[in-house]
Amino acid sequence: MKQFMDEDFLLKTDTAKKLYHGAAESMPIIDFHNHLNAREIYEDKCFDNISDLWLSGDHYKWRAMRLHGISEAIITGDVDPYERFLAYADTIQNAIGNPLYHWTHLELRRYFGINKTLSKDTARKIYDKCNKKLKTKDYSVRNLLRMQNVKVLCTTDDPIDSLEWHLKIRDDASCDIQVLPSFRPEKAIGIEKQGFASYIKTLSDVSDVIIKNVSDVIKALITRLDFFVSEAGCKVSDHSLENTFYIPASEYEVNEIFKKAMRGALITEEDAGKYHGYLLSNLGKEYYKRDMVMQLHIGATRNNATRIYKMLGPDAGVDGMNDFNYAPELSALLDSMDKDNRLPKTILYCLNPNDLEMLAVTAGCFASNDDDVRGRVQLGSGWWFVDHKSGIKHQLRALSDVGLLGTFIGMLTDSRSFLSFPRHEYFRRILCDFVGDIVENGEYPCDMDYLSDMIRDISANNAIDYFGFEIENYKGISEVY
Amino acid sequence: MKQFMDEDFLLKTDTAKKLYHGAAESMPIIDFHNHLNAREIYEDKCFDNISDLWLSGDHYKWRAMRLHGISEAIITGDVDPYERFLAYADTIQNAIGNPLYHWTHLELRRYFGINKTLSKDTARKIYDKCNKKLKTKDYSVRNLLRMQNVKVLCTTDDPIDSLEWHLKIRDDASCDIQVLPSFRPEKAIGIEKQGFASYIKTLSDVSDVIIKNVSDVIKALITRLDFFVSEAGCKVSDHSLENTFYIPASEYEVNEIFKKAMRGALITEEDAGKYHGYLLSNLGKEYYKRDMVMQLHIGATRNNATRIYKMLGPDAGVDGMNDFNYAPELSALLDSMDKDNRLPKTILYCLNPNDLEMLAVTAGCFASNDDDVRGRVQLGSGWWFVDHKSGIKHQLRALSDVGLLGTFIGMLTDSRSFLSFPRHEYFRRILCDFVGDIVENGEYPCDMDYLSDMIRDISANNAIDYFGFEIENYKGISEVY
Amino acid sequence: MKQFMDEDFLLKTDTAKKLYHGAAESMPIIDFHNHLNAREIYEDKCFDNISDLWLSGDHYKWRAMRLHGISEAIITGDVDPYERFLAYADTIQNAIGNPLYHWTHLELRRYFGINKTLSKDTARKIYDKCNKKLKTKDYSVRNLLRMQNVKVLCTTDDPIDSLEWHLKIRDDASCDIQVLPSFRPEKAIGIEKQGFASYIKTLSDVSDVIIKNVSDVIKALITRLDFFVSEAGCKVSDHSLENTFYIPASEYEVNEIFKKAMRGALITEEDAGKYHGYLLSNLGKEYYKRDMVMQLHIGATRNNATRIYKMLGPDAGVDGMNDFNYAPELSALLDSMDKDNRLPKTILYCLNPNDLEMLAVTAGCFASNDDDVRGRVQLGSGWWFVDHKSGIKHQLRALSDVGLLGTFIGMLTDSRSFLSFPRHEYFRRILCDFVGDIVENGEYPCDMDYLSDMIRDISANNAIDYFGFEIENYKGISEVY
Repeated sequence: MKQFMDEDFLLKTDTAKKLYHGAAESMPIIDFHNHLNAREIYEDKCFDNISDLWLSGDHYKWRAMRLHGISEAIITGDVDPYERFLAYADTIQNAIGNPLYHWTHLELRRYFGINKTLSKDTARKIYDKCNKKLKTKDYSVRNLLRMQNVKVLCTTDDPIDSLEWHLKIRDDASCDIQVLPSFRPEKAIGIEKQGFASYIKTLSDVSDVIIKNVSDVIKALITRLDFFVSEAGCKVSDHSLENTFYIPASEYEVNEIFKKAMRGALITEEDAGKYHGYLLSNLGKEYYKRDMVMQLHIGATRNNATRIYKMLGPDAGVDGMNDFNYAPELSALLDSMDKDNRLPKTILYCLNPNDLEMLAVTAGCFASNDDDVRGRVQLGSGWWFVDHKSGIKHQLRALSDVGLLGTFIGMLTDSRSFLSFPRHEYFRRILCDFVGDIVENGEYPCDMDYLSDMIRDISANNAIDYFGFEIENYKGISEVY
Repeated sequence: MKQFMDEDFLLKTDTAKKLYHGAAESMPIIDFHNHLNAREIYEDKCFDNISDLWLSGDHYKWRAMRLHGISEAIITGDVDPYERFLAYADTIQNAIGNPLYHWTHLELRRYFGINKTLSKDTARKIYDKCNKKLKTKDYSVRNLLRMQNVKVLCTTDDPIDSLEWHLKIRDDASCDIQVLPSFRPEKAIGIEKQGFASYIKTLSDVSDVIIKNVSDVIKALITRLDFFVSEAGCKVSDHSLENTFYIPASEYEVNEIFKKAMRGALITEEDAGKYHGYLLSNLGKEYYKRDMVMQLHIGATRNNATRIYKMLGPDAGVDGMNDFNYAPELSALLDSMDKDNRLPKTILYCLNPNDLEMLAVTAGCFASNDDDVRGRVQLGSGWWFVDHKSGIKHQLRALSDVGLLGTFIGMLTDSRSFLSFPRHEYFRRILCDFVGDIVENGEYPCDMDYLSDMIRDISANNAIDYFGFEIENYKGISEVY
Repeated sequence: MKQFMDEDFLLKTDTAKKLYHGAAESMPIIDFHNHLNAREIYEDKCFDNISDLWLSGDHYKWRAMRLHGISEAIITGDVDPYERFLAYADTIQNAIGNPLYHWTHLELRRYFGINKTLSKDTARKIYDKCNKKLKTKDYSVRNLLRMQNVKVLCTTDDPIDSLEWHLKIRDDASCDIQVLPSFRPEKAIGIEKQGFASYIKTLSDVSDVIIKNVSDVIKALITRLDFFVSEAGCKVSDHSLENTFYIPASEYEVNEIFKKAMRGALITEEDAGKYHGYLLSNLGKEYYKRDMVMQLHIGATRNNATRIYKMLGPDAGVDGMNDFNYAPELSALLDSMDKDNRLPKTILYCLNPNDLEMLAVTAGCFASNDDDVRGRVQLGSGWWFVDHKSGIKHQLRALSDVGLLGTFIGMLTDSRSFLSFPRHEYFRRILCDFVGDIVENGEYPCDMDYLSDMIRDISANNAIDYFGFEIENYKGISEVY
């Protein structure tokens, strides 16, 4: 029996162990998609206690606590932080097989050097030990990131954001971590949502573009995009595709729909699909021009439990997984750009693991390009409800079954927490185990030079190349391994 | 190589073996969903022969025989019971990997002490040996249940049922098995089906409620529900969701639809969806008031082969698995109750294994409650076409990936057969193997006290708590393990 | 660690090894579905170089090269064959886990005796060695087929095809391989596609049937079907189901739709679904009369990247995988034949692996027949994007979970390449490994006589029986094993 979470955690074969310890482990972290707060990085914030750090906003943990029967008051109400922590400690013991169990214990080990298992019995000691450390400058936000060798972060940002904190970080020579914005024009695309018209007005103000029609919307967004790119080094956009996201439509039609929305008239699902598709396709072509990456996150359902949403707002642990069909629609969206030779590098993420195979195949349909881009359309890493051992393996298997594993750009945290970076370790261990199995089963030659390079590529190098990050002293890092 | 079906059947690791033999094996059986005949239990029926017991109504076995090319006359026609048994013996040999193979041999071993493998060659001996035993009182229905340590059975019952046999069992001090009805108002909900109007008339008669509109339907059903609860200890309802099951609608709309149905006018799918949803939501709130459990069985298609349906009626082995999308609809149904803080404990079962992940996530969206219910919304155990080793593992994996395995209420037979209870053993072995793998891979600490408790909980205790069964001398049983 | 692709490639257990080497390995190949060119077989063509043979039309390989970032000009343009080969050699090294990696190396070993691994470094030597052999008569098309013990081939043919080359092969005593046509009336069914009306005119000419309505279409097709059957021994039809494929409709309705199409009016998706279904159902009944097999290939999306389609035409590696729902529609199609007792033997293939379980269940719903057909409705082997180790295992598991593995008719190549037959070996190894695991886990008795027979049956005998192939000196072959 393997000891719990020993140095060969998740690594079954010798090949897997060699690949992980020899190639993956020392690679830097390129976290090209997360929801970290740039201001907290600039200000190099310290946290007061592990309960707030872990439990004040982590909807994964909230869900687990609810499932365990903890009352909402303790989970999200105004209780003593230790009471909440204790309830989580009690909950986590029941989370056998859940990635929360592993993330929790990896974080205790990697950041705090705590090898004890969290439970009601150990909660007090662990709580105190973490908090003591957190109060020191060694546990400031930047130092937490440095502990995990994080080199690049792409946060998620609204086009109207001033990027004040990103720019300050850019100009702060003491910050050795690149913190780049991602361009997420969700509110400009969500024409069917409340607040659309007023958002458009703000966008007009911020961009200094008078917005009368859809091409003005795009012009305003491009103005902001260019600001994101030129001032803050933005390399990537992000779009959440929910419901209908592409119905072909003429500019005239889309303008009529836009006018309806601006005067507050009802937007049908068909209207919305036309407007969404028009914007996505036209923005995608602009990303292409700028050699940027377009991320498509597909299949979340939002705020399913109205009661909790009213109490806590969005991102409260009541988002779900859709099961809608969208293969032809997604192909049509990609084709609308590709047929003009303007399909940007694109990453397809699904929330429902059933879609992994279809997306892996779709990526292959749109791989052809004359720009020398390896893996132009990527199947993104297991996302959110797929971000666990079996989901990560499923993604790797779907990708390698019909695609080229060697071109994969790898892992991202998608997290709001400064402690979440051991998820890269988690991913890399599973990746090495996956590859180790193939090799030790005699399904691929044991060419350790090639395999080690491939593991390093998937761990970081492919992402660096794909996004075009420029990493100072990366050569130095490269020499380390 | 492991011997076929030895004492460590399905148990790969030492941890799995310890958990099964040390914790799971001796737990009582709480079978909270099946289709057993209460009268046969009250009368403590004896069966004449294994052919009738196995093959007179088991559509799993019929399907297998059809696939093997056995003619319909032998499967369901009027032939000598041994001829049918022989055809099944021939069929089963070809069922490698099918749970029928395991169920068949577990039943031969556990009930009849027969360790031989069933085939054409052994059929005669096995047939005679079983029949000899069946004729003795030791093999009466109650004794068969006792052999498997069955403590609670929830049968499936129509609201208009008099529960004559349940009440007799309740009053029969010699029956040490609780036989409780489940409330399954399928015919009152199936407004689009033939016979609806006449069913409503019967419901009116039985409940003594004059039914003029939809609130009368609900009142009549509640009258019956209260009878089920107060007289027969009913704890659970059951609903089969097929096609559209929830479209929000006003009481006025639903009343108009009800009137259309009562005068025999055409009910569209949209009409049906509104009526279904209205009844499900309102009944659910009534279940909540009574601290009952609502079971939702989702995704069967019925009577697909008209020829067989005309010949044999329903439940003839030609029901199928749908592949429809229903994530947002299901969330809306659950939310319609939850937003009023009236969502009952709910179990979600899917017939299509693709839906397991989505349902596990949906359960988490509606977990929050202030009633101290652990796992308020449950992902139900692998059901029907998912009730096999890989389906059970898939369910356990989906549940543990995004939920809390420790809160799971576990297995049910869903069976029409008094010999089907070794399916609990089958499930428990797979559960222990699943947990054993996680532990021996170093993915969870080897804390055998906690793990043994968890296995006992999933085997029986969680279900007892969740449904609120009161089990006499349960302490006694508890001491046994 | 197992050596790469040794004699026990993919065979984990001793049971698997015994079954493969003792039973599967020497069985002849019955390839009942492929896209080989009958003329090339008749003429016993020799190929000039491995680059053309592998890379001139194989869209699997094109996709991989595109994903690797190879420019389209090298993949499909007018470059030196070695340049293309070299690019493929570079690509394949990155295809760990992809079946292309295994197919490529199995083909190098089985046909050319080359055990080296293909990469940029070895490309030149391998290229030259293959080409030298290819130029000899030992590597003619027929000899390639003989090397792999191919006994029957079913090609894919349009009803208007003269079958000139099939008839010549039939009459050529020197050809010891049966080359039979499959009847694929895709263009007569694709009423919504461009060119339908002109195709119908050609069909009319070829069949000598004046076509005024839909029953004339069927009559013309039947005329051709009878020619295919009586002259060329056709045993099987093939249909690609995409989008709506069955909406019940009267002959009158379908005639009106047909007339619309013939005069060039717009055909709606509903129109198309009615026409498709009418033709499929009526043709199916004709297949039944002739004891033929109906193949249904479900779920491809075609020519997704317009740019590539315009450049290269169909089958250029930009077809995709749909995710549509069709369970009730498929049941209705099958029922439309079964209710008249005219459902032919039918094989259901899905392109989306999510559908495997649903199809396996659907097959069971329509298994009943009085014609003694084992496995009347079959779940077809993993197809196209499912034709890899995990897809093949998924299909075997879905089939054995709810069906009878012993009745399975097994593998087909679906290939355009004369070198693709080691895919049968690939399948058989995975099959033996799958069965070996079940046996060594103690889930089925180790009855090697039965198991060896079952493996032989799935490898070839079941297909021979199911299709009714008559194989000369098959007894002889039978004695070999």
